Amino acid sequence: MPLFRVTLAYDGSDFAGWQRQRGGAGRTVQGELEASLARLAGGAPVSVAGAGRTDAGVHALGQVASFDLPRDMPPGELQRALNGLLPEDVRVLEAAVAPEGFHARRSAVSKLYRYVLDCGGVALPQRRLYAGWVPWPLDPARVAAAAALYLGRHDFASLASSGSSVATTTRTVTRSEAAFEGSTLVYETEADGFLRKMVRSMVGGLLAAGRGVATVGELARALEACDRRAWPPPADARGLTLVRVSYPASTPPAGPVLR
Amino acid sequence: MPLFRVTLAYDGSDFAGWQRQRGGAGRTVQGELEASLARLAGGAPVSVAGAGRTDAGVHALGQVASFDLPRDMPPGELQRALNGLLPEDVRVLEAAVAPEGFHARRSAVSKLYRYVLDCGGVALPQRRLYAGWVPWPLDPARVAAAAALYLGRHDFASLASSGSSVATTTRTVTRSEAAFEGSTLVYETEADGFLRKMVRSMVGGLLAAGRGVATVGELARALEACDRRAWPPPADARGLTLVRVSYPASTPPAGPVLR
Repeated sequence: MPLFRVTLAYDGSDFAGWQRQRGGAGRTVQGELEASLARLAGGAPVSVAGAGRTDAGVHALGQVASFDLPRDMPPGELQRALNGLLPEDVRVLEAAVAPEGFHARRSAVSKLYRYVLDCGGVALPQRRLYAGWVPWPLDPARVAAAAALYLGRHDFASLASSGSSVATTTRTVTRSEAAFEGSTLVYETEADGFLRKMVRSMVGGLLAAGRGVATVGELARALEACDRRAWPPPADARGLTLVRVSYPASTPPAGPVLR
Repeated sequence: MPLFRVTLAYDGSDFAGWQRQRGGAGRTVQGELEASLARLAGGAPVSVAGAGRTDAGVHALGQVASFDLPRDMPPGELQRALNGLLPEDVRVLEAAVAPEGFHARRSAVSKLYRYVLDCGGVALPQRRLYAGWVPWPLDPARVAAAAALYLGRHDFASLASSGSSVATTTRTVTRSEAAFEGSTLVYETEADGFLRKMVRSMVGGLLAAGRGVATVGELARALEACDRRAWPPPADARGLTLVRVSYPASTPPAGPVLR
């Protein structure tokens, strides 16, 4: 049974997130992909592993998924067939045969997320599903100082969603960059993994610092506290995109770097 | 009764176009705006004139509307009140008191439209509502030559939708520029006015020329024929945005030029 790996883009607006839900309530990306794969497999169920479990409203430009398909087919044909079956808000950007033992989530070495936030003025309708919005301006220097806090190895328990059961809440952040383009803040962060709602909480911290409701020193102490009640609220899901998942160099490339 | 003028942005995806429809069938931008204004006017009906009657799926960054409001209020307050009442997919970017006799459509001297088209590859879900898409590449030189055809004063009857009743189908196009950004075609056109579906038909001509299904000479003859059956089909509404409406210099400015 050939093992495939696909790179996906999706618009998370009309999805209850990546992960198929118990009882089938809510449209999910995993559910749509598995339904299309089952059709290709002549009705046999196909179970898909996704690299990142994006929440409702969160988008992807480079989600990666892996699955065993009980049928051999050239990867290009698999891509075209899936794009013919999938709804318009999910697209397969690339398909490849994966090396034995590959698993989209367990084999990943890092993930890159981008958050887009419009600050001040009026929220443009055309961007309302793809950018967060706050009605006030942010101080770029304080946002940059807060972004630097996250770099390196930390216990991010303060930034994790409640109710998540993970072995450890320690993660290593290798990139945390905030750039302003006019009144738009573009924040990118890369780490060996992210806890549930962690990126949105990171952005929540930037917002608190940038508006001046918390100093960078207060944020640093709230991070060390390992207590989610100490941390500012997470930012809106709609500004968040999973941009890229990276694998060890021995893994075949996942196509071009998507911006 | 003060006469106001507002500049609007909207996402046309969930609208049956600008114009209120007989019988009230279909959600329209004019209908939403008039309903919000009636609430501000204590229930009195307010009739709104729009500069451009955008079709279903067509977006705006700089639509202009004018109306008499049976109540005086500062323009900034009007803007905030409307943005509090309107749905999220319509925003008032600017409000101003208009000079006596101003009419959003009749006073306009030109309109600028932009069409975005992705060529080849896979249609990104996040852009599916804001860009047209064709699965093949286009020849930039032929697209540019076709775009130049439209410049100047022409009878555009071949590019008009059937069933429209206008006094004349002659228009003067002062801008017609096609630029490629990677595999994305961005086309901008400005004229003293556009016939129904004219911009989408202009883009349909660019597509036919760029793919090589019509030569530029054939398009020139089809334009001269003043027969819509001679013209290629119009492009998808979703890539089209009304960017700016211009008024004589004596009219107060409509805010910043929106890109």
